Amino acid sequence: MASTLILYYSKSGNTREVANILASYLRKEKVDVEVRDVLDTSPDFLLNYDGIIMGSPTYYGGMAAEMKEIIDKSVKYHGELSGKLGGAFTSSAYIGGGNETTLLSILNAMLIHGMVVVGIHNADHYGPVSIEAPDNRTDKQCKIYAKKFADTLKLLKSVE
Amino acid sequence: MASTLILYYSKSGNTREVANILASYLRKEKVDVEVRDVLDTSPDFLLNYDGIIMGSPTYYGGMAAEMKEIIDKSVKYHGELSGKLGGAFTSSAYIGGGNETTLLSILNAMLIHGMVVVGIHNADHYGPVSIEAPDNRTDKQCKIYAKKFADTLKLLKSVE
Amino acid sequence: MASTLILYYSKSGNTREVANILASYLRKEKVDVEVRDVLDTSPDFLLNYDGIIMGSPTYYGGMAAEMKEIIDKSVKYHGELSGKLGGAFTSSAYIGGGNETTLLSILNAMLIHGMVVVGIHNADHYGPVSIEAPDNRTDKQCKIYAKKFADTLKLLKSVE
Amino acid sequence: MASTLILYYSKSGNTREVANILASYLRKEKVDVEVRDVLDTSPDFLLNYDGIIMGSPTYYGGMAAEMKEIIDKSVKYHGELSGKLGGAFTSSAYIGGGNETTLLSILNAMLIHGMVVVGIHNADHYGPVSIEAPDNRTDKQCKIYAKKFADTLKLLKSVE
Repeated sequence: MASTLILYYSKSGNTREVANILASYLRKEKVDVEVRDVLDTSPDFLLNYDGIIMGSPTYYGGMAAEMKEIIDKSVKYHGELSGKLGGAFTSSAYIGGGNETTLLSILNAMLIHGMVVVGIHNADHYGPVSIEAPDNRTDKQCKIYAKKFADTLKLLKSVE
Repeated sequence: MASTLILYYSKSGNTREVANILASYLRKEKVDVEVRDVLDTSPDFLLNYDGIIMGSPTYYGGMAAEMKEIIDKSVKYHGELSGKLGGAFTSSAYIGGGNETTLLSILNAMLIHGMVVVGIHNADHYGPVSIEAPDNRTDKQCKIYAKKFADTLKLLKSVE
Repeated sequence: MASTLILYYSKSGNTREVANILASYLRKEKVDVEVRDVLDTSPDFLLNYDGIIMGSPTYYGGMAAEMKEIIDKSVKYHGELSGKLGGAFTSSAYIGGGNETTLLSILNAMLIHGMVVVGIHNADHYGPVSIEAPDNRTDKQCKIYAKKFADTLKLLKSVE
Repeated sequence: MASTLILYYSKSGNTREVANILASYLRKEKVDVEVRDVLDTSPDFLLNYDGIIMGSPTYYGGMAAEMKEIIDKSVKYHGELSGKLGGAFTSSAYIGGGNETTLLSILNAMLIHGMVVVGIHNADHYGPVSIEAPDNRTDKQCKIYAKKFADTLKLLKSVE
């Protein structure tokens, strides 16, 4: 069974809620998922999973400092995350507010770690975006994303 | 055998040369490679390969209009490239000249197509960058990139 | 009087409509505005204005090839656009669809030309985004953007 | 006299050194400059200057978490930085290592604050990049950048 860590930072609770929605859809795809608050994690934790998905509110066009901190610290294991599948999601106050650059700030960091990243052609392209509290739209985004992420993960890990 | 299309646009010949170096390293990894000038291609061509790598000179922080044109036209097949492995390379006049944003302009377009993208932890992270004409540094970048791309492609396509 | 060129590429007509809304608000701010279809322009045209705003549909996370073509050709005048004020707008099929990276593909090209760029703290941050056909939301975005652009332009050109 | 804050985060000392080189060139252009370690600053400090330049090492394609933290906290003053001139610089371990995306992570945050940003046509386009310890190349980048930043600042503030 392929495994995935969903790491989130959440102040209002919106991003945590998206994390949980995503987790439930990934579990339906038979992925072993652990959801963790980034404040309760250390970089060595990143080593234990086949996939890593990071979620952050949109803060000035990038991930929250709290999420960036664990990425900066993960330099200790540079090279050891290579080949893992990465993903990102964000919650944002409104449209045009920096959500895409926030997702890409996470995905680019993952590419630098040598990770693999996957896009979505028929939903939010760089990863699920929740405008304010998660709603039906968010749920649909997470469902489509979870399916694509799980399918890609299984291929990379040669499991079914 | 997994297959890959290397599509390039080249005015000075530098980008074409990188395309050929990359092709030779991919062939050593037992990937079936075709190298094509973007001016001699149509979007339907993109459908025929497991992997697609696009190379462009760094023009104002993005890929050349000639390369963007085929991406824009590929909307005709939106969804059909989903799951293919994508990659990018660029040749640039100098450091700090927009080469990273050029690579990301290609990789982001691929994510929007639902493609899979892979980064490199121990070489140019977003894809090979050649500063001026290809040299030993470029050769090394291509070698590392080709190995990682080929390994990821084989996993995605379940071939050895 | 400070002058500005609004250059657009439009297939459906949506982007052209945003160009015209933006033009009318800039004129209310006493800016001399010319609106042009990019297909009817050549790069030497860019030299004649204090400000340049470019608008493109969101195509695979970047500006349309037709807009990129004129940017690529403007290399002929590299350095001569330095210090001009630049801006961007886009029309997009939906949220999370690459509109931010499209705006940034234009703004980054302008920075490479040595141009000045301005953001918006209380509306679409990187420039106006129209989701589908322009509506009230688009109109409001253009109004706020035009005011900020005009104010900045007048300072840079030392006119009132 | 126009004023500028140079804020840096530095672990090895390289980024601090670039901060000081940049400060000395800005002072030659008759700008009142203060250089501060981000660890000794609070967001209210950002209010006191006409220009703000932020420098960070290149950490996984973005600014250091320590720099992002002050940006996140500056939300308290959202809107009050509007119209100030912003700039960025970075020090990076090597070419192709995420330095451009690091600079843009800072510049994009500044645009979201409604700040004004300026590019360079004849040097590192998005801001000075130092590869490893500052050398002659870095010095030249800082000199060109300081001149352009100072000239733009004086226009925006209507001082000479």
